[in-house]
Amino acid sequence: MNGAESLISTLIGAGVNVCFANPGTTEMPMVQALDSVPGMRAVLCLFEGVATGAADGYARMTGKPGLTLLHLGPGFANGIAYLHDAKRARSPIVNLIGDHASWHLPADAPLTSDIVSLANPVSHWVRRSNSAEEIAGDAAEAIALASVKPGSIATLIVPHDAQLEAASRTVAVTAVASPSAVSDEAIKLAAETLRGESAALFLGAYALRERGLKAVARIAAATGCKLICESFPARWERGVGTPIIERLPYFPEPAMAALAPYKSIVLAGARSPVSFFGYPGLPSYFISPKQNTVTLASPVEDVEAALEALADSLNAPHDVTANSELQLPQLPTGKLTPETLSAVVAALLPENCIVMDESNTSMGPFTKLAQSVRPHTALFQPGGAIGLGFPCSTGAAVACPDRTVINLQSDGSGMYTLQALWTQAREGLNVKTIVLNNQSYRILGIELMRAGVKELSSLAKSLIGLNNPPIDWVSLSKGLGVPAVRVESAETLAKELSRALAEAGPQLIEAVL
Amino acid sequence: MNGAESLISTLIGAGVNVCFANPGTTEMPMVQALDSVPGMRAVLCLFEGVATGAADGYARMTGKPGLTLLHLGPGFANGIAYLHDAKRARSPIVNLIGDHASWHLPADAPLTSDIVSLANPVSHWVRRSNSAEEIAGDAAEAIALASVKPGSIATLIVPHDAQLEAASRTVAVTAVASPSAVSDEAIKLAAETLRGESAALFLGAYALRERGLKAVARIAAATGCKLICESFPARWERGVGTPIIERLPYFPEPAMAALAPYKSIVLAGARSPVSFFGYPGLPSYFISPKQNTVTLASPVEDVEAALEALADSLNAPHDVTANSELQLPQLPTGKLTPETLSAVVAALLPENCIVMDESNTSMGPFTKLAQSVRPHTALFQPGGAIGLGFPCSTGAAVACPDRTVINLQSDGSGMYTLQALWTQAREGLNVKTIVLNNQSYRILGIELMRAGVKELSSLAKSLIGLNNPPIDWVSLSKGLGVPAVRVESAETLAKELSRALAEAGPQLIEAVL
Repeated sequence: MNGAESLISTLIGAGVNVCFANPGTTEMPMVQALDSVPGMRAVLCLFEGVATGAADGYARMTGKPGLTLLHLGPGFANGIAYLHDAKRARSPIVNLIGDHASWHLPADAPLTSDIVSLANPVSHWVRRSNSAEEIAGDAAEAIALASVKPGSIATLIVPHDAQLEAASRTVAVTAVASPSAVSDEAIKLAAETLRGESAALFLGAYALRERGLKAVARIAAATGCKLICESFPARWERGVGTPIIERLPYFPEPAMAALAPYKSIVLAGARSPVSFFGYPGLPSYFISPKQNTVTLASPVEDVEAALEALADSLNAPHDVTANSELQLPQLPTGKLTPETLSAVVAALLPENCIVMDESNTSMGPFTKLAQSVRPHTALFQPGGAIGLGFPCSTGAAVACPDRTVINLQSDGSGMYTLQALWTQAREGLNVKTIVLNNQSYRILGIELMRAGVKELSSLAKSLIGLNNPPIDWVSLSKGLGVPAVRVESAETLAKELSRALAEAGPQLIEAVL
Repeated sequence: MNGAESLISTLIGAGVNVCFANPGTTEMPMVQALDSVPGMRAVLCLFEGVATGAADGYARMTGKPGLTLLHLGPGFANGIAYLHDAKRARSPIVNLIGDHASWHLPADAPLTSDIVSLANPVSHWVRRSNSAEEIAGDAAEAIALASVKPGSIATLIVPHDAQLEAASRTVAVTAVASPSAVSDEAIKLAAETLRGESAALFLGAYALRERGLKAVARIAAATGCKLICESFPARWERGVGTPIIERLPYFPEPAMAALAPYKSIVLAGARSPVSFFGYPGLPSYFISPKQNTVTLASPVEDVEAALEALADSLNAPHDVTANSELQLPQLPTGKLTPETLSAVVAALLPENCIVMDESNTSMGPFTKLAQSVRPHTALFQPGGAIGLGFPCSTGAAVACPDRTVINLQSDGSGMYTLQALWTQAREGLNVKTIVLNNQSYRILGIELMRAGVKELSSLAKSLIGLNNPPIDWVSLSKGLGVPAVRVESAETLAKELSRALAEAGPQLIEAVL
């Protein structure tokens, strides 16, 4: 057994058995170990951002570490943007980076770089294995650390010589720490606050998953408190039967207006919400200093247990029926607009599907509609690095082969990571992508208007326009092996989405707005 | 005038008037300043790696700083791989990164990250402007530093509030330092060495440009020394009339064999050559300790002046005719192989074109053939981060609108940066891309064989194969607005390349190997 084999064995032993890979020469012993140690599924990605974003999607859907295999500093760097998103999503991720043989580093070969400096901003833990004998222990530590709920990012750098040299052991991951428990005082204070008048419960992290939401419904039933969630939750179990929750708006003015009616805000698995960007004259924090902020559980604390304890302390009923009436919008006709797009997708969402929502400016009404349609899981981008939709939906589909994944993909964002379509085709993944083609970075036009620009100049238009030349998403998708069609009306979208949902494997629909 | 306007004015005043941009919200004041301060051409790129690679190509062809405009940490991170290449190429680059307003940073908004940690590994200089008033001076310092020949990478982080606040001045870049002069002793020692028996001159950086090569030809005429150059020079003026130079092979065994015959190696603008990767049992350095290594000029010293002084000290003739006979290969027929591909491209290269060579394993014989064809400029990847071909050829075409750019693009590498095709279409750039489609990361198969693998397992094959599904480059190219055709024989390649060269604007030919 060599170091690479001890590494792969340790991973497989810990149940980490899917690897999103874009390896190079310095990772070849690990690739060989994938062969000699059975049990790891290797998913090839043609750009590292696809690998890291897919690992994030996989981790969010399984709770297990999403594993990447990346090549040296520049290869890792290509994956940083979606590790940033994964870090903000608190997804468990283990990155494996091959490095030059340790004896070759002083030669400063062309691909040598400071991997640690690149890895630190997107990792909770970075380690360079010093020898073959240490790799298994380092890997076990990485897995154990990453796996503590909700999750962390562990990056392990493995020199080529350490991969090749003899190793004597694998290491079992025996104990994964539990998330920090919330104090009785915090629960008591939250209960008192919610019993008072005009309180909101602000939800994030595992508060938005099944167990958390069950407790949330009980709390809402007992107190009548308002439920609000983060603008971009990592994962939200949504649809009929789950409590109605207001998703915090993106821009400061409506976000502050949404929070303003409440004397007290109780944070459950969420930080005090802040503005995505700083706007002159507007505050960073949306909760005013005059409001009362109470933390039930921080994003890394055990919010599920805390919510249950809170529900119990409120003597809340045990089985609460919330939002029980299925409400499917009527299928609209006519032009594709945010309204018609949202209605079609909401109406046709299959039960138990996964919706990756990178719709940005194109599907405003969707969130409200989606609250009472067929139950589904919604994924967002807590880190704001755009282009996550393609890879994250890919990883979610690998994680859940029996569920349909629908990727609502803005066009500008999608251009960062379209290579993921190839991996979807390669793996026959059940991902249905709707590219929302408005031929622009629409959000930047909105931001310029917010900044006081009355009319966009031709230069500004050209810098936010994707219409010269127009991007042909059908052609791109077919080029990467994914069948695709273009639709320009609500009725054609409904027809093509129904067809795509009925067919197996990846499909792309270019929806022209 | 606000800080952003003082920045753009300072850049334009220093002659930095092309910006490769992928801006976001925190860069909007800079985008507005592009409007209010005339004189900057903004080239929109749909992925940051396209912007940084294009800036590199632009810088190599103009000698002026390639300017990028990138969005926060994750956006910058997407550009790191090709900044790595640019740093190894010693290209002058100025990166502008918008950051959150300084008062908003403590809120740790979703896109907040440690930009400095990300920037350091690929920058010679990193600065965060502290106020609007400081921006112009910081920018001038960045430009001056980046511009010292051969070039450096300067990264300037500009907070949103500093962009917006009032600024009173622009700053002129008055003095750009000269590269360090080489000592008389170094020239004397090099002259003695080359006068002795069995010496080679090992060339890099500006030694391979017009002025350097003129002196190199004189030195070779006077001493009969062997001429060898780096495996991946940043820029090499090549073709009939330039001295015949052996390009150092990639793998250690042939590289060492190429250097072994010489008692002494004189380094001119190059480091002592090292192995791209470390292989067990093989050394990092290709020059044996038994050989005599003499440094005429390091990569950052004034190698052009040093070569001229060396030629003079050798009493070399002044006007040397080297390699004066144009030798165009016959146009071959039949299957596309490294041999036929190389012959077709070498035969048809138009005079004064620019060849971006990311052909990797697909065009082995090309380098030798190219030495005696029509004069041209060749660009390579000194940093080894693959995917540079698409963006670097884009930037070279922006720099040299009157020259044809030919991008020899391996398929696996090209998948990292295909978004550049859109920018080529948008700008009507005269780039002719030949995608070398061998449906694999061929180099990794070679590396596995080198590592002792006798036959590739199906897992190994699947991890280096791009054939499942096959990638349709014609479809991808058309999807991004660039006309494309597929060729499968040498005669069709010759016909289509001739046509593409005759037509204006970008063209793509998928050459199926």
